Amino acid sequence: MSSTIGNHLKMTIFGESHGEAIGVTLDGLPAGIQLDFSKIMIQMNRRAPGNHSSSTARKEADIPKILSGVLNGVTTGAPLCAVIENTNTHSKDYENLTTVPRPSHSDYTANIRYNGFNDIRGGGHFSGRLTAPLVFAGAICRQILETKGIIVGGHVYSIGEIHDTPFDMCAQPLPLTELSAQYFAVQDEAIKEKMVAKIEEVKSNQDSIGGIIEVAAFGLPAGIGSPMFFGVEGVISSYIFGIPAVKGVEFGAGFDIATKLGSEANDKFIIENDTVKTSTNNCGGILGGITSGMPLIVRAAFKPTPSISKTQKSVNLNSMKETDLIIKGRHDPCIVPRALPCVEAAVAIALVELLMERGKL
Amino acid sequence: MSSTIGNHLKMTIFGESHGEAIGVTLDGLPAGIQLDFSKIMIQMNRRAPGNHSSSTARKEADIPKILSGVLNGVTTGAPLCAVIENTNTHSKDYENLTTVPRPSHSDYTANIRYNGFNDIRGGGHFSGRLTAPLVFAGAICRQILETKGIIVGGHVYSIGEIHDTPFDMCAQPLPLTELSAQYFAVQDEAIKEKMVAKIEEVKSNQDSIGGIIEVAAFGLPAGIGSPMFFGVEGVISSYIFGIPAVKGVEFGAGFDIATKLGSEANDKFIIENDTVKTSTNNCGGILGGITSGMPLIVRAAFKPTPSISKTQKSVNLNSMKETDLIIKGRHDPCIVPRALPCVEAAVAIALVELLMERGKL
Amino acid sequence: MSSTIGNHLKMTIFGESHGEAIGVTLDGLPAGIQLDFSKIMIQMNRRAPGNHSSSTARKEADIPKILSGVLNGVTTGAPLCAVIENTNTHSKDYENLTTVPRPSHSDYTANIRYNGFNDIRGGGHFSGRLTAPLVFAGAICRQILETKGIIVGGHVYSIGEIHDTPFDMCAQPLPLTELSAQYFAVQDEAIKEKMVAKIEEVKSNQDSIGGIIEVAAFGLPAGIGSPMFFGVEGVISSYIFGIPAVKGVEFGAGFDIATKLGSEANDKFIIENDTVKTSTNNCGGILGGITSGMPLIVRAAFKPTPSISKTQKSVNLNSMKETDLIIKGRHDPCIVPRALPCVEAAVAIALVELLMERGKL
Amino acid sequence: MSSTIGNHLKMTIFGESHGEAIGVTLDGLPAGIQLDFSKIMIQMNRRAPGNHSSSTARKEADIPKILSGVLNGVTTGAPLCAVIENTNTHSKDYENLTTVPRPSHSDYTANIRYNGFNDIRGGGHFSGRLTAPLVFAGAICRQILETKGIIVGGHVYSIGEIHDTPFDMCAQPLPLTELSAQYFAVQDEAIKEKMVAKIEEVKSNQDSIGGIIEVAAFGLPAGIGSPMFFGVEGVISSYIFGIPAVKGVEFGAGFDIATKLGSEANDKFIIENDTVKTSTNNCGGILGGITSGMPLIVRAAFKPTPSISKTQKSVNLNSMKETDLIIKGRHDPCIVPRALPCVEAAVAIALVELLMERGKL
Repeated sequence: MSSTIGNHLKMTIFGESHGEAIGVTLDGLPAGIQLDFSKIMIQMNRRAPGNHSSSTARKEADIPKILSGVLNGVTTGAPLCAVIENTNTHSKDYENLTTVPRPSHSDYTANIRYNGFNDIRGGGHFSGRLTAPLVFAGAICRQILETKGIIVGGHVYSIGEIHDTPFDMCAQPLPLTELSAQYFAVQDEAIKEKMVAKIEEVKSNQDSIGGIIEVAAFGLPAGIGSPMFFGVEGVISSYIFGIPAVKGVEFGAGFDIATKLGSEANDKFIIENDTVKTSTNNCGGILGGITSGMPLIVRAAFKPTPSISKTQKSVNLNSMKETDLIIKGRHDPCIVPRALPCVEAAVAIALVELLMERGKL
Repeated sequence: MSSTIGNHLKMTIFGESHGEAIGVTLDGLPAGIQLDFSKIMIQMNRRAPGNHSSSTARKEADIPKILSGVLNGVTTGAPLCAVIENTNTHSKDYENLTTVPRPSHSDYTANIRYNGFNDIRGGGHFSGRLTAPLVFAGAICRQILETKGIIVGGHVYSIGEIHDTPFDMCAQPLPLTELSAQYFAVQDEAIKEKMVAKIEEVKSNQDSIGGIIEVAAFGLPAGIGSPMFFGVEGVISSYIFGIPAVKGVEFGAGFDIATKLGSEANDKFIIENDTVKTSTNNCGGILGGITSGMPLIVRAAFKPTPSISKTQKSVNLNSMKETDLIIKGRHDPCIVPRALPCVEAAVAIALVELLMERGKL
Repeated sequence: MSSTIGNHLKMTIFGESHGEAIGVTLDGLPAGIQLDFSKIMIQMNRRAPGNHSSSTARKEADIPKILSGVLNGVTTGAPLCAVIENTNTHSKDYENLTTVPRPSHSDYTANIRYNGFNDIRGGGHFSGRLTAPLVFAGAICRQILETKGIIVGGHVYSIGEIHDTPFDMCAQPLPLTELSAQYFAVQDEAIKEKMVAKIEEVKSNQDSIGGIIEVAAFGLPAGIGSPMFFGVEGVISSYIFGIPAVKGVEFGAGFDIATKLGSEANDKFIIENDTVKTSTNNCGGILGGITSGMPLIVRAAFKPTPSISKTQKSVNLNSMKETDLIIKGRHDPCIVPRALPCVEAAVAIALVELLMERGKL
Repeated sequence: MSSTIGNHLKMTIFGESHGEAIGVTLDGLPAGIQLDFSKIMIQMNRRAPGNHSSSTARKEADIPKILSGVLNGVTTGAPLCAVIENTNTHSKDYENLTTVPRPSHSDYTANIRYNGFNDIRGGGHFSGRLTAPLVFAGAICRQILETKGIIVGGHVYSIGEIHDTPFDMCAQPLPLTELSAQYFAVQDEAIKEKMVAKIEEVKSNQDSIGGIIEVAAFGLPAGIGSPMFFGVEGVISSYIFGIPAVKGVEFGAGFDIATKLGSEANDKFIIENDTVKTSTNNCGGILGGITSGMPLIVRAAFKPTPSISKTQKSVNLNSMKETDLIIKGRHDPCIVPRALPCVEAAVAIALVELLMERGKL
């Protein structure tokens, strides 16, 4: 396993931050899907560095080159492989990391796991850069979902203590199409200004800050997913926890539901336009691991970027002594805006997997 | 998939609440593990109904019968199958559920998913009763982990708004062995009294209440897990989301980390007794999906039991009209105390899977 | 892995020959399949020992007890577990086998693989007895296939040098329904007499003999299977090689095709009743790993039963000296007649897996 | 599934014959393996077209470019992706194939399977060209096996009716290292001349011919593999059947064992140099699905190249009328010599998978 996931749509993400290239193979895609490359690039650009003063200065074209599985813009059903070259790498910034691991990075654990043979440059295979092929794969899956009327979109739910207006979980169509085309999408633009100001402040303090992303999927039919270990929550969380820096995943009312009474938390069934719905959606559109037909709601908590310019304490693994560490290189003071399309991608890919399991694609 | 999980230790959980029997097959267990059946029964009893006034009155022996894979108390390496008979079933209580689905239960979604052929009695395969074989499998896995010096234990972290003392995430040995042998384990007995009182109150109001469970694992070596989709968070969450009523899973500082600065959240490396440790453990013992050697900390949020005695609103799926629903039968006003050994079991099984992937078992 | 197989229909076979019970779990079965238990017993009886003078004297009822996944005779979609008790065991016959392994049995390799902890009695999990749950699972899958008009059946193709009339691989319906209900099915009854006589002769010489089984599937739609590693040949052979004593698997013209010219071997496309067919079927109904709509033809070679009453040479693993071995106990002089329903079962289960992958079930 | 295989070493082969590129991802490779690129190229060249008058005239460099997972010639443990560009393509040769499918090719079945969206040019993803990445992956796996003293090699066992000297299955070291470095390796050079003459004759007749490949592995420890569905035979055959044109796979004495008595077929255990061996090796080094420590012997039957220049009968799928077909383009009159390194590669990859399952890598 490790960088391969999926029982029906098999995905392998490969590459190292400062290697030749990164990319993805997708085996099991349905044949006959017409792909719109401009829609793929919208997603790639949402994730790309350098969009905004809040993100790292590293700027790469990040144009995926499709090597297989697509003919005249239409999927052939054979495995799709796409590759993104690494062009803009400053390897010298990372020379020291095997000796003095960066706090809250994978330097230390990767070194043990791979007996020191892992490519440490830029975080290697652990780098956030590896989410670029994830976003690419998600962009393919979004287009597959659209053929079934399913839209995935999200917003920056919070940066630190600053919260955007949360999704109305029962809502009639939220503006997911619009949100899912924007960089740093929020529901309330005034809140976004506060978020941006907070990020600038943190940056000027040589620090970083965390946040939460909320993603919804509309248009999912009821009856997708299975009990126990192929439940919608379990499958989606497997994909989201594949994104670096995620420390929690919740659905519907999430952790808040633990404070509620049954009479508050239960989602009453109602009839609306001859359709079964629920008057609230604390379950996030999932009951018994299976979709209810209500919007699917998921949230992911991101830790602050562990790379900060402030001097930090670490240890020298050779001398086994404590030492100061100054991290050089370019880093996002807040990864959350760029992580938004990654979480949406993870949800989109997971939904394709879930729909394929039900023979719906 | 669905009720099968694991790439190295393949587990299938089978059975329906009011069918012949429930049980589990475990394929891939190492040969030569001496099993202590009394330790298995300690775990079974922690989960069993009827332990306490806070739980359902249904009382079953729930003694697993091992059919294969064990000879003279020692694992043979062949698949282990264990079966628990269903003896105490009141099927009449559930007759109506396909027509008028219970709010926030799987009745409605299961009906769609299985075209009405699912066994609805007692929730069928979706019943919380299916966690009995999970706890059994967990008890086997705990004993495997103990041979490597790894202990899994937890406590009721919160019931509604009432919180137990949280685990000190950097702690020297917590009393995990003691906690993991108790029903309704907490760190602070005074808090437990308040929790019990709250549950009694809720019960007398014909209502239910949710809560959070916190589980730790001590003794894990550094270097277990893999980047991306076989990361420790992703694997563990796949197992935990297999438990009914879980709506969120978080590791280390979890969702709180989203409010922190990098300089607060980063876990500084230190040297202690010639060993690399971290001075805090906001990452919950996992960096880059790989264990750091610090305690593993995970929390799961449980919704309130959806079965409450209060009259509720639902719909009649035949007439497609809204209707009142009164749920009969026996239900826990709070599932959290009995769910504690289930989460511990899920973590223990996931850890065996993770250790097997690294060739450590 | 090991005793678990299937990506869509997950099957785990458990049990040891002289343990409590043997059985199978099937996870992923479609809901709503009406099962005919008498048809299951026809298959169980074809495999059961004691049918005929050519088989072992051990006689067990071998009536599977379904514990889950079936309600009122109809599949619920939840995992099906069925258990067959072991009642007639003579464990003393096998005491010596860990020290002096039987030639061409798994005693030696299992002992190394499981560090001596495997249950050696009656071959344990390696016993041919473990094909009883396989036949049960196959009987379920046959009934699923019948709902799609697909019939699986076979015959004893050869015993030693004595060959039955082979299947006409292009044939209009072969008598598969009839064949698949018989013990020791052949196309030519006169040949069967010779086969039986040969087996009797071999038996009287305290020896055993091998043979080949040929199985066909009619009614398969074209377009099932996938290129490379989910090709029909690869999937089916994975299941057939799970049956003890199989040393070769071939499709269509099989090994004979290696002696042919392209102009002889190529199956010309023709139109028959407005349908695309081929005038020959050397490919066995599979092109590029995908069904062509022609009959699927597969053959499996079985080695002679390794347990023979003749004195044999072996080694004492304690003294590391060579020694004589006399095998006690009851054994089939020829396993092939009883293996026939096992191969048919393996093919039926593999076909359900393949059809599920295409969303056809 | 389909083009992805492996539970421990996950391999996906991608690409279409006349697309941008073909290649492979390998996820799960151990870190720290020093790779010798010249050894990789020896294998690539054995498979490459244009080696010999017996093979197609198409000549491509086929130099794999490693994009990830290798740093300074050493595996990092991250997924390895390698790409081979397609440079020499004559797409016009294949225009007609969706309308008039070539006999015994995948044109017809692929068209149904992928609703006509598959890339038909040069056979697309079904092309024998896709064995180039397989051979590359095999070359990596051979180097991993060599670190454990395991050598995989083979020879052309037969072309049509002409047979090379078969492997002595019990032999002390066969010249596997030498054989596995040669194009068209045989044990008896005089036989090879006859084989070449036969191929020339067949070619001059605008025809093609089949053959059998025999592969051995030396140095495997006893105890690798598992009973039933992760047995060595089942795993290896899954990989070999992924190679186009294979219609049969057998181990040890293979189909011939079906004609033998138990007293002939049984492999007696003996002691040689204080080691347990067998005096014959009819089981091909595998008992109960587990390696015995004797040489592993496997054979694969290849059909004659279905593309022949002779005029053939086929059908026009538009008009649904029978028609003549003349296949243009370049084809091997006998694929067997070039297929030899492919079978060796499949065995090598399967052995790495099997060793990883046992925690031996």
